Amino acid sequence: MNSFLDSILDPTQIQSLDLEQLELLALDIRHRIIEVMSVNGGHLASNLGIVELTIALHKVFHSPHDKLIFDTSHQTYTHKILTGRNSLFPTIRKFKGLSGFAHPDESCHDHFYAGHAGTALSLALGVAASRDLNQENYHVLPILGDASLTCGLTLEALNNLPQSLKKFIIVLNDNAMSISKNVGSITNILSRFFHPSQPSCSDGSKKPNNTASFFEHYGLNYLGPIDGHNLKKLIATLELAKQSATPCIIHALTIKGQGMLSAIENPTTYHGARPFEPLTGKFLPNPSTKPTFPQIFGKHLLKMADEDPNLIVLTPAMPAGSCLTALIEKHPKRCLDVGIAEGHCVTFAGGLAYNKTKKVIVSIYATFLQRAFDNLFQDVCLQKLPVIFALDRAGLAGGDGSTHNGIYDIAFLNAMPNMIIAQPRSGHKLKELLESAFSYNMPVAIRYPNLSTETPDLPLLPCSLGKGEILHKGSHLAILALGHKCETALQVKNLLEKEEIYPTIVDPIFIKPLDEELLYQIFLAHPLIVTIEEHSLEGGFGQLINSFAVTHGLKNVILNLGIPSVYVEHGTHAELSKELKLDALSITDTIIEHFSLKSLTPQLS
Amino acid sequence: MNSFLDSILDPTQIQSLDLEQLELLALDIRHRIIEVMSVNGGHLASNLGIVELTIALHKVFHSPHDKLIFDTSHQTYTHKILTGRNSLFPTIRKFKGLSGFAHPDESCHDHFYAGHAGTALSLALGVAASRDLNQENYHVLPILGDASLTCGLTLEALNNLPQSLKKFIIVLNDNAMSISKNVGSITNILSRFFHPSQPSCSDGSKKPNNTASFFEHYGLNYLGPIDGHNLKKLIATLELAKQSATPCIIHALTIKGQGMLSAIENPTTYHGARPFEPLTGKFLPNPSTKPTFPQIFGKHLLKMADEDPNLIVLTPAMPAGSCLTALIEKHPKRCLDVGIAEGHCVTFAGGLAYNKTKKVIVSIYATFLQRAFDNLFQDVCLQKLPVIFALDRAGLAGGDGSTHNGIYDIAFLNAMPNMIIAQPRSGHKLKELLESAFSYNMPVAIRYPNLSTETPDLPLLPCSLGKGEILHKGSHLAILALGHKCETALQVKNLLEKEEIYPTIVDPIFIKPLDEELLYQIFLAHPLIVTIEEHSLEGGFGQLINSFAVTHGLKNVILNLGIPSVYVEHGTHAELSKELKLDALSITDTIIEHFSLKSLTPQLS
Repeated sequence: MNSFLDSILDPTQIQSLDLEQLELLALDIRHRIIEVMSVNGGHLASNLGIVELTIALHKVFHSPHDKLIFDTSHQTYTHKILTGRNSLFPTIRKFKGLSGFAHPDESCHDHFYAGHAGTALSLALGVAASRDLNQENYHVLPILGDASLTCGLTLEALNNLPQSLKKFIIVLNDNAMSISKNVGSITNILSRFFHPSQPSCSDGSKKPNNTASFFEHYGLNYLGPIDGHNLKKLIATLELAKQSATPCIIHALTIKGQGMLSAIENPTTYHGARPFEPLTGKFLPNPSTKPTFPQIFGKHLLKMADEDPNLIVLTPAMPAGSCLTALIEKHPKRCLDVGIAEGHCVTFAGGLAYNKTKKVIVSIYATFLQRAFDNLFQDVCLQKLPVIFALDRAGLAGGDGSTHNGIYDIAFLNAMPNMIIAQPRSGHKLKELLESAFSYNMPVAIRYPNLSTETPDLPLLPCSLGKGEILHKGSHLAILALGHKCETALQVKNLLEKEEIYPTIVDPIFIKPLDEELLYQIFLAHPLIVTIEEHSLEGGFGQLINSFAVTHGLKNVILNLGIPSVYVEHGTHAELSKELKLDALSITDTIIEHFSLKSLTPQLS
Repeated sequence: MNSFLDSILDPTQIQSLDLEQLELLALDIRHRIIEVMSVNGGHLASNLGIVELTIALHKVFHSPHDKLIFDTSHQTYTHKILTGRNSLFPTIRKFKGLSGFAHPDESCHDHFYAGHAGTALSLALGVAASRDLNQENYHVLPILGDASLTCGLTLEALNNLPQSLKKFIIVLNDNAMSISKNVGSITNILSRFFHPSQPSCSDGSKKPNNTASFFEHYGLNYLGPIDGHNLKKLIATLELAKQSATPCIIHALTIKGQGMLSAIENPTTYHGARPFEPLTGKFLPNPSTKPTFPQIFGKHLLKMADEDPNLIVLTPAMPAGSCLTALIEKHPKRCLDVGIAEGHCVTFAGGLAYNKTKKVIVSIYATFLQRAFDNLFQDVCLQKLPVIFALDRAGLAGGDGSTHNGIYDIAFLNAMPNMIIAQPRSGHKLKELLESAFSYNMPVAIRYPNLSTETPDLPLLPCSLGKGEILHKGSHLAILALGHKCETALQVKNLLEKEEIYPTIVDPIFIKPLDEELLYQIFLAHPLIVTIEEHSLEGGFGQLINSFAVTHGLKNVILNLGIPSVYVEHGTHAELSKELKLDALSITDTIIEHFSLKSLTPQLS
């Protein structure tokens, strides 16, 4: 189907192609990306925008000798296709298939795992420093988006460009977007003068000189802006940079979604796209009719913001993923996107909440809160400020894989004094926790996955701080299941009951503080305790239950089920759950196998 | 003694003083700071440098109505003296005395706890956003040092200055220093044109226009640079800023140590000064003759760097505190200070270690690694890179208090796959771990406190990964003590033996992986297990031991001693240990009280 493309097995082949052939190659690659994404879903728009730039990089430089270091790296599809992975490309983001991000285990052309933004410049400076100390001779090229310039890590690295540095070419792929529209002063600093979608400069403050002066402050030789879809210009500029004796930055203006009209017009929708009809771009119907936790969050938060003018919501560049688009549109002054700036987001929240006239909610992916741990520690918890953290994507990240799993947050949050941690088992409970959280008058983290859930139209009741619930009364053992694993636990119950084993099912709701009164009752009544969580076992809920038992001298047998201390790769939630033995069937088997239940039952009588 | 100063009980009194009186006040305050610091020790040089600036701020603005938000906040001594805390000033950094940092519990003039740098701008933006939403009318003034501009958090906040913002005055206290000399491009961007110690501009690139243009990119009206010790100019400039309709930045050039010759000449030495002779500045003799863990680290690392040209050491602005000064001087290309940029430091380390030709050591305070948790996760652990983290100041921070305690690192490090965590009980063991760590071929954290320790002149033996040691064999109970708490445990042993209780003392050395074989033996031989750690009990070593016991079905009685889930304030290590019942006497009492030892001994026979 893509016969020309199929013949490219190694990027060296590109170097012999002429401009016309490269342009045909770009066309082929774009078709290939659309073809595969229409079936698999994935990062579509960003990959369509970087096709020519990636081809030009492989034309001018010699990977893997020269190091292409992609920031965030969800935009590496062309790079993957050109570096021997085209035949495997249809497996991208699928279980055991290619990763949706750079992945050193896949190819010698991928140097670093990346998924969280802003790391490329620091990594590249490290590689270049090692090169120079070893007196080696290759090019180092960090490739980053304009949104990474909102990220403090990139700016720290900019400050650290050594004056002695040579052969260092920063490639700025400027599409004026993060996942959503990029934010802050940087959007004014970066010139759009030659932007293909905005050919004339309407604003004098954005003239290229301004952009150049910004980067020249950091000792960079500025080249641009250039049309990032013009292969001829890209190649010429990269060749120029290749000869540069000093570090330089190439500023390429690209269009997110280039080559697919619907993606150009809706780059945010097509950033992480669901499967779609390839010719029209029309999304295929979603097989699930139930809403997801983030959807329920976004919808309910809009209702809360409508009702309470003091509610303020912050997001670090994730308004679409966290379902805040409607809220931002309706209340733009009270739902703020701060860019890929998680640290600032949390400290800013501390400032907003300081005089306690505002109710501040930070909507952030669990994995990205890792970037604001210190801010949470000093600027919120130490201050005892009642900031609510809505931890989206807590649990396994599905197709995004190892860099995005939200499975470490309990470990670091639990160590913080003054912190409250809760996890709702359903959309309904999520709403109840959101409504109740400010009444605790402390920092609260509410963690939930990106999975569909139940949200029956029932009245919302207050959640008493630190109170769990018994979902089902049994006798042989008690299963304490966190959040959506309660649903799994209820399935386990049905399976165990077929074996005449009758478990009690408990939803602790709160991880910190634990409902010690309830736990004590449960421990006294059940010789066997099973904990289930979609979180690392190290530092997770199960370990807290173990310590509860030890501290209170309770000698029950306890089985902790969760995620072992390994990085979990991508796949569907169901596939990964099965592999980790966290699905209902596996858990049932583990419980039956692990315990000699008969020997324990006499203790109950 | 300072009669004029003693009469100032409230900053409103300053507003009626004329210039001459204010200058006398500055003189008095400087004397007062030197007088108290010469006895207590503390942050001397930075406080001497900001006397006039603080006076001018209180002259022109109305605290606490107008919000002075100090970054890092160890430079708030003049602010404390002027806001009713002069009489308590001799208690600064002492147990139950004034904090060495801004502290909201002390005064309504202190709005935020701060100790980690770079937070003031984000906090101030939050306060200003809340003010504007509430349609209130006061000034917000973040006061930050030039070194905070190396910190990504400050730069994220700069990007987020809203265009609608009014009444926002950034005060840049530029002394060209962090604790050591400031680093990176920012040192070139900030003009020294009017710097009193460098009156003429030798470098055209540092002309004020360059500085102005840098800040104007962010929409700031730039005022300066001005002489930060000239009260008249400071007051005039602040009055000008007060009238400004747009956000502005005042760039004040100050001299760290101003008013004390020895501090001006050695600002790093006098940053966190030991007690000294007030007239000469000569340091009083150090009562301890034993070296500290950081001193042994710095000295031994220099030896290792001399022997191995592939060793590289990174520090985020802490070369003096972490005893790397000699190393930087001797190997400037292999010991790099990256500024207050912890995130970049760790990701840069990942880049340096990437091709495994370099041995990379990140020297970082345990509390500051909190700022690089995500970098550690993605750019080191996920990559399985053998970067060594030397976690200085692990444990209680002494005089620095709640913002600086290094008592959460085990909790977040232990959750990381591929991570190794160790803690040496002595300087000798620290050297052995440093020598052995690269052989593990994985990320390794070695945590140690800023306390004196033993370093006998014995041969260095390799430390087998994950192997603990029995320090003393007893029978009634086993004490597992982490790092320097082994010394405490041996004291406890002596005290318990007087009561005819004979404990076994175990040094686990490794927290991850645990020495499960040794633990199993210990658990089988001792019905009572006591864990001792200078770390938060939540997520600490004790909880890991509890989970070990539960997982292996071991029913021993376990007592976990450590730091409860509260913020621990400042004091000497001995005072805090006693208060937390972690000193030998308290632990002995706890063990005797807690266990009914007689009832347990029969199990041993």
